[in-house]
Amino acid sequence: MEVADYMNKLGQQARKAGREMSKADSGKKNLALLKIAEALASHKETLVEQNQKDLMAGKKNGLDFALLDRLELNLAGIDSMIEGLEQVASLADPVGEITDLSYRPSGIQVGQMRVPLGVIGIIYESRPNVTIDAAALCLKSGNACILRGGSEAIHSNQAIAVCISEGLQAAGLPAEAVQVVETTDRAAVGELITMNQYVDVIVPRGGKGLIERISQQATIAVIKHLDGICHVYIDEKADIEKAINIAFNAKTHRYGVCNAMETLLLAESVSAQVLPLLAEKYLKEGVELRGCLKTCSLIPECSRATDEDWDTEYLAPILSIKIVDNIDEAIEHINQHSSSHTETIVTENYTLARRFLREVDSSSVMVNASTRFADGFEYGLGAEIGISTDKLHARGPVGLNGLTTLKYVVLGDGQIRV
Amino acid sequence: MEVADYMNKLGQQARKAGREMSKADSGKKNLALLKIAEALASHKETLVEQNQKDLMAGKKNGLDFALLDRLELNLAGIDSMIEGLEQVASLADPVGEITDLSYRPSGIQVGQMRVPLGVIGIIYESRPNVTIDAAALCLKSGNACILRGGSEAIHSNQAIAVCISEGLQAAGLPAEAVQVVETTDRAAVGELITMNQYVDVIVPRGGKGLIERISQQATIAVIKHLDGICHVYIDEKADIEKAINIAFNAKTHRYGVCNAMETLLLAESVSAQVLPLLAEKYLKEGVELRGCLKTCSLIPECSRATDEDWDTEYLAPILSIKIVDNIDEAIEHINQHSSSHTETIVTENYTLARRFLREVDSSSVMVNASTRFADGFEYGLGAEIGISTDKLHARGPVGLNGLTTLKYVVLGDGQIRV
Repeated sequence: MEVADYMNKLGQQARKAGREMSKADSGKKNLALLKIAEALASHKETLVEQNQKDLMAGKKNGLDFALLDRLELNLAGIDSMIEGLEQVASLADPVGEITDLSYRPSGIQVGQMRVPLGVIGIIYESRPNVTIDAAALCLKSGNACILRGGSEAIHSNQAIAVCISEGLQAAGLPAEAVQVVETTDRAAVGELITMNQYVDVIVPRGGKGLIERISQQATIAVIKHLDGICHVYIDEKADIEKAINIAFNAKTHRYGVCNAMETLLLAESVSAQVLPLLAEKYLKEGVELRGCLKTCSLIPECSRATDEDWDTEYLAPILSIKIVDNIDEAIEHINQHSSSHTETIVTENYTLARRFLREVDSSSVMVNASTRFADGFEYGLGAEIGISTDKLHARGPVGLNGLTTLKYVVLGDGQIRV
Repeated sequence: MEVADYMNKLGQQARKAGREMSKADSGKKNLALLKIAEALASHKETLVEQNQKDLMAGKKNGLDFALLDRLELNLAGIDSMIEGLEQVASLADPVGEITDLSYRPSGIQVGQMRVPLGVIGIIYESRPNVTIDAAALCLKSGNACILRGGSEAIHSNQAIAVCISEGLQAAGLPAEAVQVVETTDRAAVGELITMNQYVDVIVPRGGKGLIERISQQATIAVIKHLDGICHVYIDEKADIEKAINIAFNAKTHRYGVCNAMETLLLAESVSAQVLPLLAEKYLKEGVELRGCLKTCSLIPECSRATDEDWDTEYLAPILSIKIVDNIDEAIEHINQHSSSHTETIVTENYTLARRFLREVDSSSVMVNASTRFADGFEYGLGAEIGISTDKLHARGPVGLNGLTTLKYVVLGDGQIRV
């Protein structure tokens, strides 16, 4: 079959399954999640075997260590997928919740009901665990989904797809509610992101290049997560101990994640006190420092940051540092250079904290907490399908609610407009 | 100046003004709304004069009656603009509201703050009152906006722009928070919908053709309102009197509006009782009836509906009628042919009402109320900038909240990730 015909068939089936899923009650959906977990448990050996095929092919094709690491699916990985499914099953069902139902002068009652988006297309890199995460979230939120994982994980993903299909059917739900694209043909992505009649939203997960390309070519709305150039601003009224702990944690807890700090801003009045202490800790940890002129004069090991540094997501043990006059300069720098992901201020001053919260235009704005907390689990969403840096629809960590929309419901007793 | 340079300048100014507006307190924003109202009141004569220029040019260019009617701005129209401004001033300020602020196990508090979208571009037809409506809603929600009205209303809109600018400045807010495009060059629209660095969302208002064209060409997200093919379903358990009142009102209260009923569905078991009574009322009102075979056999004056009829928004005294077996066929017909705007069921049966509410995938779903209630004022939003048939971000009547987004706020006490 041609790729276009094949994807079209998936689309038709997804649309039909999506209508069924939107009606499915919470009990059935939870049962499906647990049955998928059971299927994973009983197919552990097959899953590892199929994953070995992908790993061997990957090694042969010269994938680097980081990619192979993400591609690997071992027994511990399967257990954590099972745990994830159980966790999503235990979350409250967002679908059907009605809020703000209130009487209007005409006598009608008006409220908003949370409903599934319909069909979600997810495009991601070669990480088999994403297949389960994405399927679980879409299933619980009453959506159908079409999953297109990286071609290097094709055997792993197909094995996982079998388990998902078994689980859905065991719960009496349509197997087509979760469809894993079987072809590694790149044209499939082009079809998926332009099937407006069958797909309601595209969620790309992966590198900036992938997401930019998809956003440009998609005719369907994209909930995108671009880069995370996160800032910590140590204010003149900061508690020095909190400042050092937060700035150190935000940079060094994990380097390759989008909520890691990439640029540290400090109020000039505290910089001489804070920077030498912090720099010592960073340097001991092997973090390369690049700073403004004032920073370099305080820290001899620091090299000069270029204009490009302020706009760079390092995802590595590198940190750019800038000393600013005050909160105004800090906010201006952030609103100009941030990717609108996550920023934090360290301060004990009420008024400045309040200003920072209001005036910084990012998906997460924090006071006295590490940027590393920007995460669906830490925020209590139970799980996340990604972190949106878009302003529309979903912003910040996207959990079950982000995969739903609201429709108005009106309850009347025969009212007509007069 | 070239159109591209001119639009670029508006964009830069809007972005800057948007940052100011996002910080502006409610008092200043309300003062600006009232000062704009004052300015309109004191420039009434000029406004009518300038509108006369547009009307004369329109007549000369052969605009039809409906277009001229919408273009006209008389003293009563100015009074109603003033009243609208006062109404928006009296609404609660959505910006800065924090919801669901709760403690997490880590000790951080997480909530969501409502914030402006930034810069909104609004493209609309030659209706001067939209200039004030749109400006008022954007201003109150803390956004900057760039307004591009139809070229036939250019003199009226420029006169209104002077009043808006006076009001903003009198309240100490930047005049560039509301910019009315001064050129009638069509290239300005092309620039507006592709200035991603300066504009956050495009709201098109007008005919289906305009909205489809803009959606296709825009690189910025569009909150669109396409057509309203609304349905009333008279169920077998309907109260006959309510059914007749609602079906009559939904069709005949106003013909040219998006929340008017275009297709009537009836359960077969009640059709013989209801249809003749209803048809008599419609025919007396001059409504042309087009029905399925069964309908035609009950109503001799009814012509046969074609396949095309079920997908047509008449916006006219024409109604298509279909007799269905039961609620399943009704819901199937709606989910296939509706434009997902507004549908209503007339029934006294609890279970069927509940199913209709859950299973019909439209922006407004009603029980025992006329589709004509789908409206921001009737829903208590205070005002609306349009009715979105999109699923993402805003769905149904779009009021102040639809012009905002949510960012996460995190309040900590020095917490770091461990």
